[in-house]
Amino acid sequence: MPINTSTLQFSTRGNVDILDITPSVGQAIAHSGLKNGVAVIFCASSTGALTTIEYEPGCLSDLRRLFDEIVPANRDYAHNLAWHDGNGHSHVRAALLGASLSVPFSAGNLLLGTWQQIIYVDFDIHPRSRELILQMLGE
Amino acid sequence: MPINTSTLQFSTRGNVDILDITPSVGQAIAHSGLKNGVAVIFCASSTGALTTIEYEPGCLSDLRRLFDEIVPANRDYAHNLAWHDGNGHSHVRAALLGASLSVPFSAGNLLLGTWQQIIYVDFDIHPRSRELILQMLGE
Amino acid sequence: MPINTSTLQFSTRGNVDILDITPSVGQAIAHSGLKNGVAVIFCASSTGALTTIEYEPGCLSDLRRLFDEIVPANRDYAHNLAWHDGNGHSHVRAALLGASLSVPFSAGNLLLGTWQQIIYVDFDIHPRSRELILQMLGE
Repeated sequence: MPINTSTLQFSTRGNVDILDITPSVGQAIAHSGLKNGVAVIFCASSTGALTTIEYEPGCLSDLRRLFDEIVPANRDYAHNLAWHDGNGHSHVRAALLGASLSVPFSAGNLLLGTWQQIIYVDFDIHPRSRELILQMLGE
Repeated sequence: MPINTSTLQFSTRGNVDILDITPSVGQAIAHSGLKNGVAVIFCASSTGALTTIEYEPGCLSDLRRLFDEIVPANRDYAHNLAWHDGNGHSHVRAALLGASLSVPFSAGNLLLGTWQQIIYVDFDIHPRSRELILQMLGE
Repeated sequence: MPINTSTLQFSTRGNVDILDITPSVGQAIAHSGLKNGVAVIFCASSTGALTTIEYEPGCLSDLRRLFDEIVPANRDYAHNLAWHDGNGHSHVRAALLGASLSVPFSAGNLLLGTWQQIIYVDFDIHPRSRELILQMLGE
Protein backbone atom coordinates (compact mmCIF):
# COMPACT_ATOMS: atom_id res chain seq x y z
CA MET A 1 0.00 0.00 0.00
CA PRO A 2 1.62 3.26 -1.07
CA ILE A 3 1.90 6.39 1.05
CA ASN A 4 1.61 9.74 -0.64
CA THR A 5 2.85 12.77 1.33
CA SER A 6 2.33 16.29 0.07
CA THR A 7 1.71 19.80 1.34
CA LEU A 8 -1.18 22.20 0.82
CA GLN A 9 -0.37 25.92 0.73
CA PHE A 10 -2.75 28.65 1.88
CA SER A 11 -2.70 32.36 2.60
CA THR A 12 -4.63 33.18 5.75
CA ARG A 13 -5.83 36.46 7.23
CA GLY A 14 -5.57 35.33 10.87
CA ASN A 15 -8.02 35.94 13.74
CA VAL A 16 -10.12 32.81 13.24
CA ASP A 17 -9.87 32.81 9.48
CA ILE A 18 -11.72 29.65 8.41
CA LEU A 19 -10.83 28.06 5.05
CA ASP A 20 -12.76 25.36 3.24
CA ILE A 21 -9.92 23.04 2.22
CA THR A 22 -12.18 20.29 0.84
CA PRO A 23 -11.46 21.09 -2.84
CA SER A 24 -7.70 21.08 -2.23
CA VAL A 25 -7.80 17.73 -0.46
CA GLY A 26 -10.03 16.29 -3.18
CA GLN A 27 -7.66 17.44 -5.93
CA ALA A 28 -4.68 15.95 -4.13
CA ILE A 29 -6.47 12.60 -3.95
CA ALA A 30 -7.23 12.80 -7.67
CA HIS A 31 -3.60 13.61 -8.47
CA SER A 32 -2.33 10.77 -6.30
CA GLY A 33 -4.08 8.12 -8.33
CA LEU A 34 -5.23 6.41 -5.14
CA LYS A 35 -8.82 5.17 -5.13
CA ASN A 36 -9.51 3.91 -1.60
CA GLY A 37 -7.89 4.95 1.63
CA VAL A 38 -7.60 7.59 4.27
CA ALA A 39 -6.43 11.18 3.99
CA VAL A 40 -4.57 12.22 7.14
CA ILE A 41 -4.42 16.00 7.28
CA PHE A 42 -2.11 17.63 9.79
CA CYS A 43 -1.62 21.24 10.76
CA ALA A 44 2.10 21.69 11.44
CA SER A 45 1.57 24.79 13.58
CA SER A 46 0.54 25.40 17.17
CA THR A 47 -1.93 28.17 16.30
CA GLY A 48 -4.03 26.42 13.64
CA ALA A 49 -6.44 23.50 13.75
CA LEU A 50 -8.69 21.25 11.65
CA THR A 51 -12.25 20.01 11.86
CA THR A 52 -15.39 19.64 9.72
CA ILE A 53 -18.48 21.85 9.58
CA GLU A 54 -21.20 22.95 7.19
CA TYR A 55 -19.31 25.75 5.46
CA GLU A 56 -21.89 28.52 5.41
CA PRO A 57 -21.46 31.98 7.00
CA GLY A 58 -23.90 31.29 9.86
CA CYS A 59 -22.11 28.19 11.14
CA LEU A 60 -18.73 29.89 10.83
CA SER A 61 -19.97 32.89 12.82
CA ASP A 62 -21.44 30.61 15.48
CA LEU A 63 -18.18 28.68 15.77
CA ARG A 64 -16.19 31.92 16.14
CA ARG A 65 -18.52 33.04 18.93
CA LEU A 66 -17.84 29.83 20.86
CA PHE A 67 -14.10 30.48 20.85
CA ASP A 68 -14.61 34.16 21.71
CA GLU A 69 -16.64 33.07 24.72
CA ILE A 70 -14.64 30.19 26.15
CA VAL A 71 -11.15 31.43 25.14
CA PRO A 72 -11.54 35.22 24.81
CA ALA A 73 -8.76 37.23 23.18
CA ASN A 74 -9.03 40.27 25.44
CA ARG A 75 -7.72 38.96 28.75
CA ASP A 76 -4.37 38.04 30.25
CA TYR A 77 -2.55 34.92 29.09
CA ALA A 78 0.55 33.53 30.76
CA HIS A 79 1.96 32.91 27.29
CA ASN A 80 1.66 36.61 26.43
CA LEU A 81 3.18 37.72 29.72
CA ALA A 82 6.23 35.60 28.96
CA TRP A 83 6.60 36.08 25.21
CA HIS A 84 4.73 39.32 24.40
CA ASP A 85 3.41 38.02 21.09
CA GLY A 86 -0.27 38.48 21.88
CA ASN A 87 -1.45 35.11 20.61
CA GLY A 88 -1.93 33.21 23.87
CA HIS A 89 -5.60 32.66 23.08
CA SER A 90 -4.64 31.30 19.63
CA HIS A 91 -2.53 28.55 21.20
CA VAL A 92 -5.25 27.43 23.62
CA ARG A 93 -7.95 27.44 20.93
CA ALA A 94 -5.79 25.42 18.54
CA ALA A 95 -4.87 22.85 21.20
CA LEU A 96 -8.56 22.38 22.03
CA LEU A 97 -9.77 21.95 18.45
CA GLY A 98 -6.87 19.72 17.39
CA ALA A 99 -4.23 19.54 14.67
CA SER A 100 -5.07 16.26 12.98
CA LEU A 101 -8.04 14.99 11.01
CA SER A 102 -8.45 11.68 9.16
CA VAL A 103 -11.03 11.47 6.37
CA PRO A 104 -11.70 8.27 4.40
CA PHE A 105 -12.06 8.25 0.61
CA SER A 106 -13.52 5.66 -1.71
CA ALA A 107 -13.57 5.46 -5.54
CA GLY A 108 -11.44 8.61 -5.44
CA ASN A 109 -14.04 10.63 -3.51
CA LEU A 110 -13.93 11.92 0.05
CA LEU A 111 -16.62 10.22 2.14
CA LEU A 112 -18.06 13.44 3.57
CA GLY A 113 -21.67 14.22 4.37
CA THR A 114 -23.70 16.31 1.94
CA TRP A 115 -23.40 19.45 4.09
CA GLN A 116 -19.97 18.72 5.53
CA GLN A 117 -16.71 20.40 4.58
CA ILE A 118 -13.14 20.10 5.89
CA ILE A 119 -11.96 23.35 7.42
CA TYR A 120 -8.64 24.75 8.44
CA VAL A 121 -8.95 27.37 11.18
CA ASP A 122 -6.10 29.84 11.58
CA PHE A 123 -6.37 31.17 15.14
CA ASP A 124 -3.22 33.29 14.92
CA ILE A 125 -3.48 37.09 14.91
CA HIS A 126 -1.66 38.05 11.71
CA PRO A 127 -1.99 37.13 8.04
CA ARG A 128 0.31 34.24 7.24
CA SER A 129 1.45 31.84 4.56
CA ARG A 130 0.48 28.45 5.89
CA GLU A 131 1.19 24.87 5.00
CA LEU A 132 -0.74 21.75 5.86
CA ILE A 133 0.61 18.20 5.61
CA LEU A 134 -1.54 15.79 3.62
CA GLN A 135 -0.73 12.12 3.81
CA MET A 136 -2.75 9.59 1.90
CA LEU A 137 -2.62 5.89 2.71
CA GLY A 138 -4.49 3.78 0.26
CA GLU A 139 -4.57 1.67 -2.84
CA MET B 1 -1.68 -4.05 3.51
CA PRO B 2 -5.38 -4.28 2.74
CA ILE B 3 -7.92 -1.55 3.36
CA ASN B 4 -11.39 -2.54 4.44
CA THR B 5 -14.11 0.11 4.13
CA SER B 6 -17.60 -0.44 5.50
CA THR B 7 -20.46 1.46 7.06
CA LEU B 8 -22.14 1.17 10.43
CA GLN B 9 -25.87 1.92 10.61
CA PHE B 10 -27.61 3.37 13.66
CA SER B 11 -30.95 4.84 14.60
CA THR B 12 -30.56 7.89 16.81
CA ARG B 13 -33.04 9.88 18.89
CA GLY B 14 -31.24 13.22 18.50
CA ASN B 15 -30.55 15.90 21.12
CA VAL B 16 -27.20 14.57 22.31
CA ASP B 17 -28.10 10.94 21.93
CA ILE B 18 -24.91 9.06 22.85
CA LEU B 19 -24.37 5.57 21.45
CA ASP B 20 -21.74 3.07 22.54
CA ILE B 21 -20.48 1.87 19.15
CA THR B 22 -17.63 -0.24 20.55
CA PRO B 23 -19.39 -3.60 19.93
CA SER B 24 -20.17 -2.65 16.32
CA VAL B 25 -16.59 -1.63 15.62
CA GLY B 26 -15.30 -4.79 17.29
CA GLN B 27 -17.57 -7.00 15.19
CA ALA B 28 -16.48 -5.26 12.00
CA ILE B 29 -12.84 -5.94 12.86
CA ALA B 30 -13.67 -9.60 13.50
CA HIS B 31 -15.50 -9.88 10.17
CA SER B 32 -12.66 -8.20 8.28
CA GLY B 33 -10.17 -10.91 9.21
CA LEU B 34 -7.57 -8.24 10.00
CA LYS B 35 -5.51 -8.84 13.13
CA ASN B 36 -3.39 -5.71 13.61
CA GLY B 37 -4.04 -2.21 12.44
CA VAL B 38 -6.01 0.92 12.97
CA ALA B 39 -9.76 1.50 12.78
CA VAL B 40 -10.50 4.95 11.35
CA ILE B 41 -14.07 5.88 12.23
CA PHE B 42 -15.60 8.88 10.51
CA CYS B 43 -18.92 10.62 11.01
CA ALA B 44 -20.10 11.75 7.56
CA SER B 45 -22.42 14.40 8.96
CA SER B 46 -21.94 17.92 10.27
CA THR B 47 -24.15 17.39 13.34
CA GLY B 48 -22.58 14.25 14.81
CA ALA B 49 -19.20 13.53 16.38
CA LEU B 50 -17.01 10.81 17.87
CA THR B 51 -14.91 10.42 20.99
CA THR B 52 -14.27 7.96 23.84
CA ILE B 53 -15.62 7.98 27.38
CA GLU B 54 -16.54 5.63 30.22
CA TYR B 55 -20.01 4.69 29.04
CA GLU B 56 -22.00 4.96 32.26
CA PRO B 57 -25.00 7.27 32.80
CA GLY B 58 -23.15 9.67 35.08
CA CYS B 59 -20.36 10.46 32.60
CA LEU B 60 -22.88 10.82 29.77
CA SER B 61 -24.96 13.25 31.83
CA ASP B 62 -21.87 15.25 32.77
CA LEU B 63 -20.78 15.44 29.13
CA ARG B 64 -24.24 16.64 28.06
CA ARG B 65 -24.10 19.37 30.71
CA LEU B 66 -20.82 20.65 29.31
CA PHE B 67 -22.34 21.15 25.86
CA ASP B 68 -25.50 22.67 27.35
CA GLU B 69 -23.31 25.19 29.13
CA ILE B 70 -20.76 26.19 26.51
CA VAL B 71 -23.01 25.78 23.43
CA PRO B 72 -26.57 26.21 24.78
CA ALA B 73 -29.50 25.30 22.54
CA ASN B 74 -31.79 28.10 23.69
CA ARG B 75 -30.16 31.17 22.23
CA ASP B 76 -29.76 32.77 18.81
CA TYR B 77 -27.53 31.18 16.20
CA ALA B 78 -26.61 32.82 12.91
CA HIS B 79 -27.14 29.45 11.24
CA ASN B 80 -30.74 29.33 12.47
CA LEU B 81 -31.45 32.92 11.42
CA ALA B 82 -30.37 32.03 7.89
CA TRP B 83 -31.73 28.51 7.52
CA HIS B 84 -34.51 28.22 10.14
CA ASP B 85 -33.69 24.60 10.94
CA GLY B 86 -33.05 25.11 14.63
CA ASN B 87 -29.86 23.06 14.86
CA GLY B 88 -27.23 25.82 14.95
CA HIS B 89 -25.98 24.57 18.31
CA SER B 90 -25.70 21.02 16.89
CA HIS B 91 -23.27 22.19 14.21
CA VAL B 92 -21.02 24.06 16.64
CA ARG B 93 -20.95 21.19 19.12
CA ALA B 94 -20.11 18.65 16.44
CA ALA B 95 -17.31 20.80 14.98
CA LEU B 96 -15.79 21.16 18.44
CA LEU B 97 -15.88 17.47 19.37
CA GLY B 98 -14.73 16.26 15.95
CA ALA B 99 -15.81 13.83 13.25
CA SER B 100 -12.87 11.43 13.13
CA LEU B 101 -11.38 8.97 15.59
CA SER B 102 -8.59 6.44 15.05
CA VAL B 103 -8.38 3.43 17.37
CA PRO B 104 -5.63 0.80 17.11
CA PHE B 105 -6.36 -2.92 17.31
CA SER B 106 -4.06 -5.87 17.92
CA ALA B 107 -4.71 -9.63 17.78
CA GLY B 108 -8.18 -8.69 16.55
CA ASN B 109 -9.03 -6.64 19.65
CA LEU B 110 -9.49 -2.90 20.04
CA LEU B 111 -6.77 -1.47 22.28
CA LEU B 112 -9.13 0.44 24.55
CA GLY B 113 -8.80 1.03 28.27
CA THR B 114 -10.82 -1.10 30.68
CA TRP B 115 -13.37 1.65 31.29
CA GLN B 116 -13.21 3.26 27.86
CA GLN B 117 -15.80 2.98 25.11
CA ILE B 118 -16.10 4.53 21.65
CA ILE B 119 -19.12 6.80 21.42
CA TYR B 120 -21.03 8.39 18.61
CA VAL B 121 -22.82 11.57 19.69
CA ASP B 122 -25.76 12.75 17.61
CA PHE B 123 -26.16 16.46 18.34
CA ASP B 124 -28.98 16.98 15.85
CA ILE B 125 -32.50 17.72 17.08
CA HIS B 126 -34.58 14.98 15.46
CA PRO B 127 -34.44 11.18 15.39
CA ARG B 128 -32.45 10.03 12.38
CA SER B 129 -31.07 7.04 10.56
CA ARG B 130 -27.32 7.54 10.66
CA GLU B 131 -24.32 6.01 9.01
CA LEU B 132 -20.70 6.02 10.09
CA ILE B 133 -17.75 5.17 7.86
CA LEU B 134 -15.38 2.56 9.22
CA GLN B 135 -12.08 2.06 7.51
CA MET B 136 -9.62 -0.52 8.73
CA LEU B 137 -5.99 -0.45 7.66
CA GLY B 138 -4.08 -3.47 8.81
CA GLU B 139 -2.73 -6.92 8.23
CA MET C 1 3.33 -1.65 4.22
CA PRO C 2 4.30 -2.79 7.69
CA ILE C 3 2.50 -1.87 10.88
CA ASN C 4 4.51 -1.34 14.01
CA THR C 5 2.59 -1.37 17.31
CA SER C 6 4.28 -0.49 20.58
CA THR C 7 3.54 1.15 23.91
CA LEU C 8 4.98 4.22 25.58
CA GLN C 9 5.22 4.20 29.39
CA PHE C 10 4.96 7.30 31.55
CA SER C 11 4.60 8.20 35.21
CA THR C 12 2.11 11.01 35.71
CA ARG C 13 1.29 13.20 38.70
CA GLY C 14 -2.38 13.67 37.80
CA ASN C 15 -4.49 16.85 37.95
CA VAL C 16 -3.79 18.06 34.43
CA ASP C 17 -0.23 16.87 34.33
CA ILE C 18 0.95 17.67 30.81
CA LEU C 19 3.83 15.64 29.32
CA ASP C 20 5.79 16.44 26.18
CA ILE C 21 5.85 13.01 24.53
CA THR C 22 7.46 14.22 21.28
CA PRO C 23 10.92 12.76 22.06
CA SER C 24 9.42 9.36 22.93
CA VAL C 25 7.41 9.23 19.71
CA GLY C 26 10.44 10.33 17.70
CA GLN C 27 12.62 7.63 19.24
CA ALA C 28 10.00 4.97 18.51
CA ILE C 29 9.95 6.02 14.86
CA ALA C 30 13.74 5.83 14.73
CA HIS C 31 13.73 2.35 16.29
CA SER C 32 11.02 1.11 13.91
CA GLY C 33 13.19 1.72 10.84
CA LEU C 34 10.20 3.27 9.05
CA LYS C 35 10.96 6.39 7.05
CA ASN C 36 7.59 7.70 5.82
CA GLY C 37 4.18 7.23 7.31
CA VAL C 38 1.83 8.20 10.06
CA ALA C 39 2.15 7.75 13.82
CA VAL C 40 -1.24 7.00 15.37
CA ILE C 41 -1.05 7.69 19.09
CA PHE C 42 -3.89 6.50 21.28
CA CYS C 43 -4.59 7.03 24.95
CA ALA C 44 -6.14 3.80 26.24
CA SER C 45 -7.76 5.47 29.23
CA SER C 46 -10.91 7.52 29.74
CA THR C 47 -9.19 10.18 31.85
CA GLY C 48 -6.30 11.12 29.57
CA ALA C 49 -6.09 12.83 26.20
CA LEU C 50 -3.71 13.93 23.44
CA THR C 51 -3.16 17.10 21.44
CA THR C 52 -0.37 19.41 20.29
CA ILE C 53 0.74 22.75 21.73
CA GLU C 54 3.80 24.94 22.13
CA TYR C 55 5.28 23.26 25.19
CA GLU C 56 6.23 26.27 27.31
CA PRO C 57 4.91 26.99 30.83
CA GLY C 58 2.68 29.88 29.75
CA CYS C 59 0.72 27.89 27.18
CA LEU C 60 0.36 24.97 29.58
CA SER C 61 -0.97 27.26 32.30
CA ASP C 62 -3.41 28.89 29.86
CA LEU C 63 -4.67 25.48 28.71
CA ARG C 64 -5.19 24.36 32.33
CA ARG C 65 -7.21 27.52 33.01
CA LEU C 66 -9.54 26.72 30.12
CA PHE C 67 -10.39 23.33 31.58
CA ASP C 68 -10.73 24.77 35.09
CA GLU C 69 -13.25 27.25 33.70
CA ILE C 70 -15.40 25.14 31.39
CA VAL C 71 -15.15 21.85 33.34
CA PRO C 72 -14.39 22.90 36.93
CA ALA C 73 -13.30 20.26 39.43
CA ASN C 74 -15.13 21.72 42.44
CA ARG C 75 -18.77 21.08 41.58
CA ASP C 76 -21.12 18.13 41.49
CA TYR C 77 -20.74 15.47 38.82
CA ALA C 78 -23.24 12.70 38.22
CA HIS C 79 -20.29 10.33 37.80
CA ASN C 80 -19.03 11.15 41.29
CA LEU C 81 -22.48 10.80 42.85
CA ALA C 82 -22.69 7.28 41.43
CA TRP C 83 -19.11 6.06 41.81
CA HIS C 84 -17.57 8.30 44.52
CA ASP C 85 -14.18 8.40 42.82
CA GLY C 86 -14.00 12.17 42.50
CA ASN C 87 -12.80 12.28 38.90
CA GLY C 88 -16.03 13.18 37.07
CA HIS C 89 -14.42 16.32 35.67
CA SER C 90 -11.45 14.26 34.44
CA HIS C 91 -13.75 12.11 32.28
CA VAL C 92 -15.51 15.08 30.69
CA ARG C 93 -12.26 16.92 29.98
CA ALA C 94 -10.68 13.85 28.41
CA ALA C 95 -13.73 13.13 26.21
CA LEU C 96 -13.66 16.73 24.97
CA LEU C 97 -9.95 16.86 24.13
CA GLY C 98 -9.85 13.40 22.57
CA ALA C 99 -7.90 10.16 22.88
CA SER C 100 -6.37 9.83 19.42
CA LEU C 101 -3.86 11.86 17.44
CA SER C 102 -2.29 11.09 14.06
CA VAL C 103 1.02 12.76 13.17
CA PRO C 104 2.78 12.23 9.81
CA PHE C 105 6.49 11.58 9.57
CA SER C 106 8.86 11.81 6.62
CA ALA C 107 12.52 10.83 6.25
CA GLY C 108 12.23 9.49 9.80
CA ASN C 109 11.19 12.86 11.26
CA LEU C 110 7.85 13.95 12.70
CA LEU C 111 6.35 16.69 10.53
CA LEU C 112 5.63 19.07 13.41
CA GLY C 113 5.82 22.85 13.39
CA THR C 114 8.85 24.55 14.88
CA TRP C 115 7.00 25.48 18.06
CA GLN C 116 4.70 22.48 18.20
CA GLN C 117 4.98 19.49 20.53
CA ILE C 118 2.82 16.42 21.08
CA ILE C 119 1.36 16.37 24.56
CA TYR C 120 -0.30 13.78 26.72
CA VAL C 121 -2.62 15.31 29.32
CA ASP C 122 -3.47 13.24 32.37
CA PHE C 123 -6.71 14.68 33.74
CA ASP C 124 -7.06 12.09 36.51
CA ILE C 125 -6.62 13.11 40.13
CA HIS C 126 -3.89 10.76 41.35
CA PRO C 127 -0.35 9.92 40.25
CA ARG C 128 -0.43 6.95 37.91
CA SER C 129 1.65 4.69 35.73
CA ARG C 130 0.27 5.25 32.25
CA GLU C 131 0.62 3.61 28.89
CA LEU C 132 -0.04 5.02 25.44
CA ILE C 133 -0.46 2.96 22.28
CA LEU C 134 1.74 3.97 19.37
CA GLN C 135 1.02 2.52 15.98
CA MET C 136 3.13 3.42 12.99
CA LEU C 137 1.94 2.73 9.46
CA GLY C 138 4.56 3.42 6.88
CA GLU C 139 7.35 2.26 4.66
